[in-house]
Amino acid sequence: MIKASIITIGDELLIGQVIDTNSAWIAQQLNSIGIPVLRRVAVGDTWDEIWTALDEESKKVNVVFITGGLGPTADDITKPLLCKYFDGKMVLNEDALKNVTYLFEHIFKRPITERNIKQAEVPDSCKVIINKRGTASGMQFEKNGTLFFSLPGVPFEMMGMVEEDILPLLVSSFNLPKITHKTLVTYGIGESMLADLLQEFEENLPINIKLAYLPNHGIVRLRLTSTNLESDNIINEQFEILKNVVSEYLVTTEDEGMEQVIGKMLLSRNQTVGTAESCTGGYIAHLISSVPGASAYYEGSMVTYSYAAKEKSLQVKKSTLESQGAVSEDVVIEMANGLLKQLNTTYAIAVSGIMGPSGGMPEKPVGTVWIAVANEKKSIAKKFHFRFNRQKNIQLTAMNALNMLRCFINEQD
Amino acid sequence: MIKASIITIGDELLIGQVIDTNSAWIAQQLNSIGIPVLRRVAVGDTWDEIWTALDEESKKVNVVFITGGLGPTADDITKPLLCKYFDGKMVLNEDALKNVTYLFEHIFKRPITERNIKQAEVPDSCKVIINKRGTASGMQFEKNGTLFFSLPGVPFEMMGMVEEDILPLLVSSFNLPKITHKTLVTYGIGESMLADLLQEFEENLPINIKLAYLPNHGIVRLRLTSTNLESDNIINEQFEILKNVVSEYLVTTEDEGMEQVIGKMLLSRNQTVGTAESCTGGYIAHLISSVPGASAYYEGSMVTYSYAAKEKSLQVKKSTLESQGAVSEDVVIEMANGLLKQLNTTYAIAVSGIMGPSGGMPEKPVGTVWIAVANEKKSIAKKFHFRFNRQKNIQLTAMNALNMLRCFINEQD
Repeated sequence: MIKASIITIGDELLIGQVIDTNSAWIAQQLNSIGIPVLRRVAVGDTWDEIWTALDEESKKVNVVFITGGLGPTADDITKPLLCKYFDGKMVLNEDALKNVTYLFEHIFKRPITERNIKQAEVPDSCKVIINKRGTASGMQFEKNGTLFFSLPGVPFEMMGMVEEDILPLLVSSFNLPKITHKTLVTYGIGESMLADLLQEFEENLPINIKLAYLPNHGIVRLRLTSTNLESDNIINEQFEILKNVVSEYLVTTEDEGMEQVIGKMLLSRNQTVGTAESCTGGYIAHLISSVPGASAYYEGSMVTYSYAAKEKSLQVKKSTLESQGAVSEDVVIEMANGLLKQLNTTYAIAVSGIMGPSGGMPEKPVGTVWIAVANEKKSIAKKFHFRFNRQKNIQLTAMNALNMLRCFINEQD
Repeated sequence: MIKASIITIGDELLIGQVIDTNSAWIAQQLNSIGIPVLRRVAVGDTWDEIWTALDEESKKVNVVFITGGLGPTADDITKPLLCKYFDGKMVLNEDALKNVTYLFEHIFKRPITERNIKQAEVPDSCKVIINKRGTASGMQFEKNGTLFFSLPGVPFEMMGMVEEDILPLLVSSFNLPKITHKTLVTYGIGESMLADLLQEFEENLPINIKLAYLPNHGIVRLRLTSTNLESDNIINEQFEILKNVVSEYLVTTEDEGMEQVIGKMLLSRNQTVGTAESCTGGYIAHLISSVPGASAYYEGSMVTYSYAAKEKSLQVKKSTLESQGAVSEDVVIEMANGLLKQLNTTYAIAVSGIMGPSGGMPEKPVGTVWIAVANEKKSIAKKFHFRFNRQKNIQLTAMNALNMLRCFINEQD
């Protein structure tokens, strides 16, 4: 079976100044064509560590991906190291130079510098992969039967080269097994309770189908993976059983976020939504509008952080704010109804809470949140108490608000 | 020198369904106390791979962090493996049980299940680290002089145990070297141009000071790191020189985001801001309000995705929308001024653009964005063209909008 390792290079990964999103993306792509990833390794911009990682990983797998360390600055030593590791000498590559020159003339529209031209130099032991989006070339090497791909760490550039050049090459080079993933999303049940619910299901799974639990912000995604099953019938059957067992908590049978689910619901009903946000500060609006095509069902939002903004933009009554406080059932209901009037949407979401670290009071500690959803006929509100840091409290508030809207829309049908 | 490796466990990391944020956070903490991280390795929930990773990493370093694989479900095999690896047998730990029982009674307020009680079982060869935030205990082992810490993968739980128990233990156990980082942030200059500008500076750096470039969304952070310098005088001197060389592009001499910089500027001037967002859909509002204490200078935002919302909430003229289109200089200027009137803030940011993947037109292709900033006396607008995917176009629009506000505030002084 063909297997891969991913090596990411850069001191910034080891001091934690940057979160590695490249590895996850590459892993997704490789899995989708039937190449499992055995390991991911991050090392610094250090000659010995990079060399050791190349040695160790290449002994374990058939394909090694290397990202990062190809920038034009002095801390990037990967290219000279690869030149030595693969017994080459540095040469100016004509195709790479043509590409870099083109980028500066037509896309970046800046004069090209000596340093940029130097980026077209590669070891003569590699096959160049042209980078249509940036100045650092990709490089393909081979040693002792293992394929190596060295790519720049800039996600946008790396992704283009993987999609356009490397995946097609891998598919045509190897006889790859068939891996099928089927994922569903649950909400409102913890991992342990789900595991109890699914114990019998798991024990009866066919040997080449695996179940994985992926919890995140109150959501648990359940993923079935089959390897080398001739037809998808067996995994489809198991997926149907899984759906039935968790039906009470089921959000969607696609691998998608709550904001996508809501987008589809609104689109198919020809309905619209807007948000009235205090404590989430625009984060729910951001989630809804991050879905391509959201303008078909998303009108807009009023982010009303201050009392004044709540009164002026959402017609929340001063007396309600003064008697109940901004974090209260009455205020979120008034916010939701104010938004419906202002933006004329089918539904409104409204949230008000205390996200921390400061701002808590004895009767309303940090993490207290009121969420309302409404249409012109009905409004409901619920109180929550989250006990995490500011960032996670904001995320959980948003997720619960979207889920309340999902349930509310379902009830209207 | 004491060095660490971080092993993260979970199939989800190798199929790319989850992005590993734990490693970056742990790396930050370890660096801050003078323990550099040599490598980070991610492996799946597979006996042989976890075993190999423990063997290989413990040969290279003095401290091994292990996160993940401790959940209550059948795919989590890390605990039995650690039991075997460290020659123990499983026992019910009284302190861990007391903690789990307490959590269910007082915090989660749910009945405890058999599966939860089983989570209080640990190998008798470990020292338990109590998890005040969840049911999976942390475990500390030692073998051939290497320390091992096994922690749950839930970030909030893992972070608590590292901060409260493990870092103090490491500081008191080892004689750690002094590592100092000093970071500044630049905007509006690419990595290559910066490297040209800094060539002489880099060549003249003392041997135990390193310079690193960390580019992200148009920002480049420059980080100086000194190791084992008796006093900070030398790195402080170098940092002053660095500041002068990049002064034209300097945003801040702290390691902080544009939203923090703007927050401090507004706070010190006793001024306020609000945003009028179309294409960014609330993302700029989210960034501004993600800073603790933002309510002191952030009033709120109007997210006006539709034409109707722009007219109704921001008093953008129908005639302007119809003659110029929503993505135009006149519309963002009207949006900014509408927001100033609506929310009475000192400053307004307004953005309108086409983020993709669809919605482009020949004269306004995907990536076209107009940004305005204004106060009651003056408004300025600029056109941008981004050429990335939806998510990155949104991030770049937000970053440029915040930077325009930063420059605008500076001009008023």
